[in-house]
Amino acid sequence: VTVQGGNTGLVGGGVPAAGSDTVLLSLTRLDEREPVDVAARQVTVGAGVRLSALQQHAGAAGLDFGVDLAARDSATVGGLVATNAGGIRVLRHGSMREQVAGAEAVLADGTVISRLTGLPKDNTGYDLTQLLAGSEGTLAVITRLRLRLVGVPAQRAVALVAVESTAAAISLIGRVRDELPDLQAAELFYRAGLDLVREQTGVPEPFTEPAPAYLVLECAGRTDPTDVMLEVLGSADGVLDATVAGDLAGQRRLWAYRESHTEAINAAGVPVKLDVSIPMGGLDAFVAEVPGAIAAAAPKARLILFGHVNEGNLHVNVLDAVDEGEEVTDAVLQVVARYGGSISSEHGIGRAKVPWLHLSRSPAELAAMRAIKNALDPAGLLNPGVLLPDD
Amino acid sequence: VTVQGGNTGLVGGGVPAAGSDTVLLSLTRLDEREPVDVAARQVTVGAGVRLSALQQHAGAAGLDFGVDLAARDSATVGGLVATNAGGIRVLRHGSMREQVAGAEAVLADGTVISRLTGLPKDNTGYDLTQLLAGSEGTLAVITRLRLRLVGVPAQRAVALVAVESTAAAISLIGRVRDELPDLQAAELFYRAGLDLVREQTGVPEPFTEPAPAYLVLECAGRTDPTDVMLEVLGSADGVLDATVAGDLAGQRRLWAYRESHTEAINAAGVPVKLDVSIPMGGLDAFVAEVPGAIAAAAPKARLILFGHVNEGNLHVNVLDAVDEGEEVTDAVLQVVARYGGSISSEHGIGRAKVPWLHLSRSPAELAAMRAIKNALDPAGLLNPGVLLPDD
Repeated sequence: VTVQGGNTGLVGGGVPAAGSDTVLLSLTRLDEREPVDVAARQVTVGAGVRLSALQQHAGAAGLDFGVDLAARDSATVGGLVATNAGGIRVLRHGSMREQVAGAEAVLADGTVISRLTGLPKDNTGYDLTQLLAGSEGTLAVITRLRLRLVGVPAQRAVALVAVESTAAAISLIGRVRDELPDLQAAELFYRAGLDLVREQTGVPEPFTEPAPAYLVLECAGRTDPTDVMLEVLGSADGVLDATVAGDLAGQRRLWAYRESHTEAINAAGVPVKLDVSIPMGGLDAFVAEVPGAIAAAAPKARLILFGHVNEGNLHVNVLDAVDEGEEVTDAVLQVVARYGGSISSEHGIGRAKVPWLHLSRSPAELAAMRAIKNALDPAGLLNPGVLLPDD
Repeated sequence: VTVQGGNTGLVGGGVPAAGSDTVLLSLTRLDEREPVDVAARQVTVGAGVRLSALQQHAGAAGLDFGVDLAARDSATVGGLVATNAGGIRVLRHGSMREQVAGAEAVLADGTVISRLTGLPKDNTGYDLTQLLAGSEGTLAVITRLRLRLVGVPAQRAVALVAVESTAAAISLIGRVRDELPDLQAAELFYRAGLDLVREQTGVPEPFTEPAPAYLVLECAGRTDPTDVMLEVLGSADGVLDATVAGDLAGQRRLWAYRESHTEAINAAGVPVKLDVSIPMGGLDAFVAEVPGAIAAAAPKARLILFGHVNEGNLHVNVLDAVDEGEEVTDAVLQVVARYGGSISSEHGIGRAKVPWLHLSRSPAELAAMRAIKNALDPAGLLNPGVLLPDD
């Protein structure tokens, strides 16, 4: 059985292998949304509910959902939990696993486990729900979810900040995290990405002078964060220029510089897409080292880096290297491993990254994972070929 | 092997069974504290480090630890993670599992799994660290931990609030959670508990008129929360009286009404101690129903209820029922089960609560838990008799 939600994954976890005889199990018809439990700030929904439908449902009750990402109109909550999806608000609310208060799931032998009461505290044994989060459909088929909701902040402001270097961006993050308690997003991109976005979408140069790197910062809280953002950014080292938008149109305009990256990259060619995390202490050195590693594998490649800088999570997109995809992937992930990073920060392993899983997980960990897989799915019925290397 | 940390557990999880021939493995000598990683807001420590030593270590670096509880001078971080301990700040920072960024642990076969890089995002397979959190030493022996730290808020205020009922307390919590973004603790207790505390410790009556129930609320943030607390409490329904302390001595005095409960109860006799969670929608009805259930099992029993109201977590302490301990436990936990609650909210199952585990976990869940246990510890070496019923 290959389990599929919105089929928006980037590593082939919801797609049967070529020539495979697995059954494709789509969960998109499990789209029931129960009434929002406003007192508990939770809701129970079917695994097939789309993220945007969940957001709308929460919004109608005066609440919001903690995870947001570009595939919101297609991605299902079941898939988001199974892959422990991230996105732009992890800084504030955590990844998808942090939004899950309980799950109903069907095990490989057909038995149903169900924890949908949404108790915030329940120390009665192994947390099976958390084990399923990020297990990519290999341990059970998630059918319903009890999800946490969050409040809707009254006031929001977005800043675009030009910084002189990766180091300056990292140091700024450390500072704004302390001084802007309402910070909810901190996205990094570079000159090469901005040039590509400008070329593909025609947006204007944001500041009078070009800069090596840029941050989009978003704050949202009970009071207007504009003034404190301007004050903090005005006095921070390494900031070359900054603009803050308090109005929705201005906020959209600033976010577009970051959010248009994927579209601009896809319009420019077929990229090799990697998604890595680096421990914060090594992030600056990693960014300096990775272009050389890519150039050695694919001399004509163009590197576009962007990502969720607070979590050390960078999306590595490499254009003009489609024939050297394996080599580029291997070169980048070897550098990631040397820095003690993760070869998949938020996209998961799926089928595409299985050959490199050993760079992030030790033989002892892989053996423990395999033991758990065999215990819950001894016949290997669920998502064969996904996540775990063959025995 | 019976694994023991600070031996502060309340359900016998770290104590060998009477007449058992298990080896007692104490981890208290694993007390190394690595330097605090201020940029990542994390620290790596040995499993035997005491909570208070961790707090001190974080404090010296200008940071704090998200979990705090009364046993801080004895409890070890390894034990706190193994039991997924809670405490008074779960409302703000989550339980112990939320503080864990990684672990090193020894599996039953002697292999060591180690994830101590502390990556905030790492979707490379099953989250073994989260599986160990709350597993009560039955799957592996945690030896080192990578822990998240939190900022130290500059300003703090504590309120003691007299409310007319449990319903009023619940409704107030819903309101202050929205209107006091810096809320970090919300503790409920009742008249019977206050009377006992006054009797045992001699503290004065807090308000001119006695009230049925009381809340201790604590806010901590960048700005002084005193005024906004007074404003919110002054206009809330069901509030009979309230006082807010901005100074440390006043805060300690207000906290003492809640924190002296355990000491006062223990001084008054040997209590039957239970620790349950109820879904918020049923909490009021549960509080109304449980005295009758206890009286039927032990007519002379005195009930003292208190707890972490935001999480629906009540500590049920029953005095003058030492001969009817089993009957009282059974009576209360049956009511908990009828409300869809948890028979152990933060204390865990240990040895003492195994007979009632089936009230909170279905046969399918217990079978899945047993399968995982057998996969990682096929010979049953680790903490036999703890958490899981015998096969």
